[in-house]
Amino acid sequence: MAAPQHFSTRYLSAPDVIALVQRKGVEPCLRGIADYIHADFLRWGAFDKSARVASHSRDGVIELMPIADDQTYAFKYVNGHPKNTRWGLPTVMAFGVLADVATGAPLLLSELTLTTALRTAAMSAVAARALARPGSRTMALIGNGAQSEFQALAFHHLLGITTLRLFDTDPAATAKLQANLQGTGLRTVACSSTAEAVRGADIVTTVTADKTNATILTPDLLAPGMHINAVGGDCPGKTELHADVLRQAQVFVEYAPQTRIEGDIQQLPPDFAVTELWEVLAGQHGGRASDTAATVFDSVGFALEDFSALRFLRDAAAELDMGQPIELIPELSDPKNLFGLLRTRSPLLCVVA
Amino acid sequence: MAAPQHFSTRYLSAPDVIALVQRKGVEPCLRGIADYIHADFLRWGAFDKSARVASHSRDGVIELMPIADDQTYAFKYVNGHPKNTRWGLPTVMAFGVLADVATGAPLLLSELTLTTALRTAAMSAVAARALARPGSRTMALIGNGAQSEFQALAFHHLLGITTLRLFDTDPAATAKLQANLQGTGLRTVACSSTAEAVRGADIVTTVTADKTNATILTPDLLAPGMHINAVGGDCPGKTELHADVLRQAQVFVEYAPQTRIEGDIQQLPPDFAVTELWEVLAGQHGGRASDTAATVFDSVGFALEDFSALRFLRDAAAELDMGQPIELIPELSDPKNLFGLLRTRSPLLCVVA
Repeated sequence: MAAPQHFSTRYLSAPDVIALVQRKGVEPCLRGIADYIHADFLRWGAFDKSARVASHSRDGVIELMPIADDQTYAFKYVNGHPKNTRWGLPTVMAFGVLADVATGAPLLLSELTLTTALRTAAMSAVAARALARPGSRTMALIGNGAQSEFQALAFHHLLGITTLRLFDTDPAATAKLQANLQGTGLRTVACSSTAEAVRGADIVTTVTADKTNATILTPDLLAPGMHINAVGGDCPGKTELHADVLRQAQVFVEYAPQTRIEGDIQQLPPDFAVTELWEVLAGQHGGRASDTAATVFDSVGFALEDFSALRFLRDAAAELDMGQPIELIPELSDPKNLFGLLRTRSPLLCVVA
Repeated sequence: MAAPQHFSTRYLSAPDVIALVQRKGVEPCLRGIADYIHADFLRWGAFDKSARVASHSRDGVIELMPIADDQTYAFKYVNGHPKNTRWGLPTVMAFGVLADVATGAPLLLSELTLTTALRTAAMSAVAARALARPGSRTMALIGNGAQSEFQALAFHHLLGITTLRLFDTDPAATAKLQANLQGTGLRTVACSSTAEAVRGADIVTTVTADKTNATILTPDLLAPGMHINAVGGDCPGKTELHADVLRQAQVFVEYAPQTRIEGDIQQLPPDFAVTELWEVLAGQHGGRASDTAATVFDSVGFALEDFSALRFLRDAAAELDMGQPIELIPELSDPKNLFGLLRTRSPLLCVVA
C-alpha cells in the first residue's frame, strides 16, 4: 500500500456555508441534502449508532452526536439555550466534523447552525415524501420561528406544497416568515389560531419552540389522511402533540431508542408501537396504511442526518472549491518524534499569512 | 442584565500552539498546565463527569471526551490508530473546544495533539509530586517514543529528577530521546534491559506503545519506596504491569470508573482497592503509607486534564495575543431570523480577506 498524501482539514466557516448555499441555491441544497439523507437511511444497518451525550445545565444543554460507518466518522456539537435570544445569540448553535475511520484524521470542520436548519427541513421532506398522501398541496405551519422558512421551502420544492396556512402566537413571527417567502411562489395565509390553520391542510408541520409539554395539536383537529410533521417536540419535557393524536395515528420515528426519550412519544409507554422511517424507505414496511389514516413523523433530529449533511457540504465545497485548509493537526516529518515539533524554528510567520 | 458582546471563537492551530510553547518555553508550559490540573483536581466535585464515547473500528478508535463545571464545558476529539505511522501520521491526533455553559457558545477551538503530550506529562508530575518519595532524583524511563521527552522534562523541572535510565526495544528511539534532551541538564544512561534501567531508580515511568497485555514490570523489579508512573496501559487489552506489581503496591488513579476499564487495573477484580488522586491532593487521603511502600499511578488520561490544558491555552493565548478569531457560528442581526442570513449579499469576499 502506498502512503497517502499528508492531509489537511478543510474548514467551512458560517460565512462560507452561507455563500455556498447562495451559490448553489436553497432548493438544490435542500434537494441534495435530502438525497444524501435518503441514501444514508437506506444503509441504516451499516452505521454504528449511539445515543447523544448531553451535558445539562441551568439554562440549557450542550450535546455531542457521534455516528460512523466503516469509512467515515462524524460528530456534531450542538447546544440548546432557549434564553439565548436575550443576548442576541441563536438558541441553537452547532458545528461538526467528518473524519476518516481508517486513520482518525479530521477531514472537514464545518459550521452546522445554518446547516442544521436545512437538514432538519430536508429530513422532514424525506419522511413526508414516504408518508403523506400523494397530491398533498396545502400545509399548515404552526410555529413561524427560525426553522419555519426552511420547512416551507423544503415542502414546496420537494413535495409540491403550494399553499401555507400559518399560525404563531407571535404575529410578528408570521409577518417575518411571510416577508422571507415573498417571491418563492408559495401562497401564504395568516391564520388566527391553530384550529383555523389546520383546516383543509394535507400536512401539518409543528415547529414551536416552548420547552414545555404543550398540546398544539389535539385529536379534534385531526382530519382523515392528514400527515403530521412534528418537529418541535424534541427533548425531555418538550412535546407538541396531545397523546391521543399519537394513539390515533401511525407513528414513524428516526431512531426509536432516542425518540422514546426525546420525542412526542415520551408521553407514551415504552412499548407504544412505532416504525423506524428507514424501514419504510427500504420497502420493509408499507408506510401509510390507507388514504384516510393519519400519519405522524415524530422527528427529533438524529446524528445520521448530520452525517449526511456534512457529506453534502464536503462534496459541494470540493465542487465549488470553497472553504480553506487549516492545520488542526500538526504535520510531522517523523510521526514518532512529536517533540521534534518544538525544535523547529517558529512557524508563526507562515501561519498568519 | 446587559447583553454581552457578540462572541467569536478563538482558533489555535497546531503551528499556533507550537509557537506558543516556544515563546513561553516548555518548562513554564509544563508547570502552568500542572498548576491548572492541580487546581481543577481540587474542585473534583464541581465537575459533571462522564465516560468517554468511543467508536471502535478495525484499525483504531475515535473518542469524544466531554466534561463541564457550572461555567465551562470542554470536549476533546482524539483517535488512537497504532498503524498510522506507516502513513506518516501520528498514532494519536487530537483537538478540542472550550465553551460557555451559560450560552453554549464555543469560545476556543485548539489543536490538542502536541498539547495532549504536555498535559499527560504534567498530570504524571502532579501525581508524582504527591506520591513519590521526596528527594527522588533518578527515574527509569521505559519506552522512549513520542511521549518520552515530555515525561522526562516534566519530571526534571517539576520533581527535580536529574538522571534518566532509558530503555526501549528499539535503540533508535532511545537515541532520538537522548538527542532531543541534549542541553536540558538531564543526565541520560542508555540501558540494555528494563531490569538494568530500573536498578536504583526512585521513579519508574512506563510509556510503551504496544497494544497488548505486556508485563514490562514484574514484581522482582520492585524496590522499596519506588513510585511507578504507568502511562502506557490506557485502553482495554493494553497493559504494562504484571498484576502482582499492582497487588503489592498502593494504586492511585484519575477516575476509577474509567480506569477499571482502561488502566492496568483492568486485570484485577472490580473491587480491587484504589484511591482517586484528587483525594490525596485535597488531603482526604494520606497518599504514600511509608518510605518503603511502592506506589503506582495507573494513568489513562481523563477529560478533566484536557479541560485544564484548554484553560491554560486560552489564558496563554490571550496573554500573548495568539491565534485568530473564526466565525464558526454565524453572527445574526436577529437571532430569530436564521433564514435572513441567506438574504444578505454573499459575504464571501470578506471571508477570504
